[in-house]
Amino acid sequence: MKIVRTVSELRVDGEIGLVPTMGALHGGHIALLRAARAENEVVVASLFVNPTQFDEQADLQAYPRDEAHDVEVAEREGVDVLFAPSGEDIYPAGFGTWIDVDDTGAEGAARPGHFRGVATVCLKLFNIVRPARAYFGQKDAQQAIVVRRLVRDLNVGVEIRVLPTVRDSDGLALSSRNARLSPAERERALGLPRALAKAGASDDPVRVARAELNGLTPDYVEVLDLDGARLLAAAVRVGSTRLIDNVLLEGDLS
Amino acid sequence: MKIVRTVSELRVDGEIGLVPTMGALHGGHIALLRAARAENEVVVASLFVNPTQFDEQADLQAYPRDEAHDVEVAEREGVDVLFAPSGEDIYPAGFGTWIDVDDTGAEGAARPGHFRGVATVCLKLFNIVRPARAYFGQKDAQQAIVVRRLVRDLNVGVEIRVLPTVRDSDGLALSSRNARLSPAERERALGLPRALAKAGASDDPVRVARAELNGLTPDYVEVLDLDGARLLAAAVRVGSTRLIDNVLLEGDLS
Repeated sequence: MKIVRTVSELRVDGEIGLVPTMGALHGGHIALLRAARAENEVVVASLFVNPTQFDEQADLQAYPRDEAHDVEVAEREGVDVLFAPSGEDIYPAGFGTWIDVDDTGAEGAARPGHFRGVATVCLKLFNIVRPARAYFGQKDAQQAIVVRRLVRDLNVGVEIRVLPTVRDSDGLALSSRNARLSPAERERALGLPRALAKAGASDDPVRVARAELNGLTPDYVEVLDLDGARLLAAAVRVGSTRLIDNVLLEGDLS
Repeated sequence: MKIVRTVSELRVDGEIGLVPTMGALHGGHIALLRAARAENEVVVASLFVNPTQFDEQADLQAYPRDEAHDVEVAEREGVDVLFAPSGEDIYPAGFGTWIDVDDTGAEGAARPGHFRGVATVCLKLFNIVRPARAYFGQKDAQQAIVVRRLVRDLNVGVEIRVLPTVRDSDGLALSSRNARLSPAERERALGLPRALAKAGASDDPVRVARAELNGLTPDYVEVLDLDGARLLAAAVRVGSTRLIDNVLLEGDLS
């Protein structure tokens, strides 16, 4: 596996599958890496904690970073190129061009500027890496919606693949932020997947999810549309950690 | 010459030079087409009156359109593909992704949303056509600055070539909007290039330009930076027609 640390050194030929990550790789990322490995000649994983998508500086500072672990995981999963650029290389002095996607609601309303940062860094990565396919997890459903939309609206020639959420055995969706939960917080956090699972099987999912959150206060509980699939999504805060999750109500991920 | 009217039908191979236009082709466009012809294997000209860059509906409605003339000019100048998409093809129902470039000042301040429309359509055209080089005129200097900036910031692999303003024998910069001027208005409009020429040779160009505008009220008179070249730029309104122009103060167009 080759580790590339600057945009100018990245030269990859062939049919490329890109897995954009912020590192702290877990089972959710591994599912994406395996799909990319199965479907493409060349696999590029990017490792970049994107500052412009953090609406809270404390969250950016606390975001887990463990490059040695990430290198080991990527190598084991057959990644060809690990692209780990610096902040200055992605956002040089004088940077000032942004991708704005309309009507992002839910996470977009709860985290001002978040999807602007996501959309901007994703378009940059697509232009730098030139993948045929890029892989995203269902857990960040709105991110997938935003990226699909920008790809379609801006005529970007990349297929956006969305893979099912990977969960721990207790039902909690895998997330790099889970590492920050104390055992007591983790127990409380399980209220989120449990409420969504119960609500997803009901006739009035938004109401049921709110009623079943077991004391957790949601930022939002909303039904989202991902290219025809309907998802029930929610965000909660447990202690100082913010968690999101969603379940499929109708349709399939495509 | 092939005329292509939809994004999905556009298939061009080879090293491409793109000349994005809103039609009503004049000598300024011809200079761009000739440079593109000299420097590339394949020349694509686009013909699209981009609604999203008009801040005034009246200006959009009044914008000159003459496709028969444009086809004749493009054919004569050796264009290989004339890309003339519909509005619905470029902005389909549900479209909602925009490129926003910071600090556009001057034209950006005078025409809210103008550069958002310009940047968005240019990025779309670059993604659709995939040119090696794209050609812009110095007359729309800030457009060139905005496009250079988005290309650099978003890692778009296209070289932006900027060619000198072409003028009529009386000194007026060629513009599709000149067709709207009455003879008396045209005479008044000459105050703009004359003031800029005199100011450009002075020690205090902004003050001198304002003083020499001969009764024309400028939207702005500003010094702009285009990759190190300094330009003195101004916009004036003559009757219902808004005109822009600029002169080089220092450096070269690159």
